[in-house]
Amino acid sequence: MAFEHLRHKPPRTLARPRGLLVVCAPLRSNVNLSRIVRAASCCGLDRIVCTGQAKLDRKIARDGADAIAVEVHRTLSPVLQRLREEGYRLVGLEQTTESQSLHAYEFRRRTALVIGNERTGLTPDLLRLLDDVVEIPVWGLPYSYNVATAAAMALYEYCRQFPDG
Amino acid sequence: MAFEHLRHKPPRTLARPRGLLVVCAPLRSNVNLSRIVRAASCCGLDRIVCTGQAKLDRKIARDGADAIAVEVHRTLSPVLQRLREEGYRLVGLEQTTESQSLHAYEFRRRTALVIGNERTGLTPDLLRLLDDVVEIPVWGLPYSYNVATAAAMALYEYCRQFPDG
Repeated sequence: MAFEHLRHKPPRTLARPRGLLVVCAPLRSNVNLSRIVRAASCCGLDRIVCTGQAKLDRKIARDGADAIAVEVHRTLSPVLQRLREEGYRLVGLEQTTESQSLHAYEFRRRTALVIGNERTGLTPDLLRLLDDVVEIPVWGLPYSYNVATAAAMALYEYCRQFPDG
Repeated sequence: MAFEHLRHKPPRTLARPRGLLVVCAPLRSNVNLSRIVRAASCCGLDRIVCTGQAKLDRKIARDGADAIAVEVHRTLSPVLQRLREEGYRLVGLEQTTESQSLHAYEFRRRTALVIGNERTGLTPDLLRLLDDVVEIPVWGLPYSYNVATAAAMALYEYCRQFPDG
């Protein structure tokens, strides 16, 4: 078959807005945050919730920095409680004692995917608020994915389950 | 449910070595290459084929830099031809005229996933050698995933299809 490279193919359209929202604990690295913003924007999300010094690197986030609304909050607990009241299922992305494999996890359409800090992960006070925690199987060293890599995989899995929004 | 954070949970074991091999065209960024190495190592791959100035940033690749054999070649065409003779299906990751959606693509176990340059993608002489090309659906700006993000999503999908190797 003759494959011809196409740069920036026309995107897919969503039948309705994405039900997925990404919520980030304070991250160490604005590079990681910016990578998550680009991936989330490519996946058609229209907003992302961040905490801490959430400063985007526009060379990394690209047009995602403008296309997606970045909400910055000081602390996450009240945000998560409000999201629950708005009908979001609160799903952490973390290796924990009771995590479910992302391979088998069935997302609810209206989901807030909660992403932890690179080193400390999700703190106990946030874990306590979550409905589910998912983790991505690991087979080799260093036995944990980079936070933006893990977020990309989770975004991919959600979009696979809800290709039309 | 009480979720308790676990740092570096014990990994899964593969029933047999991974049939997947990642093959990278010369990348602009060793950061991207190093991110791909970390993700590939976490996924249990034992080698990666690179071209060009493939210099790993060990702060990014982490233990993946030691756990995975990094083969560096000057040009990719002879490598791909040899891999085909060894029974690998050559699958590009790229937006092209005839790409299949990664959502629907059924990987062969023995697959060489061929990843293109950040700007120029896969060149026509490489595209000509491929059996299939897969692409990841995009719904929003900047209408293309970062190369390491796309590679992570494809690694995830392959591992989802072959969780035991």
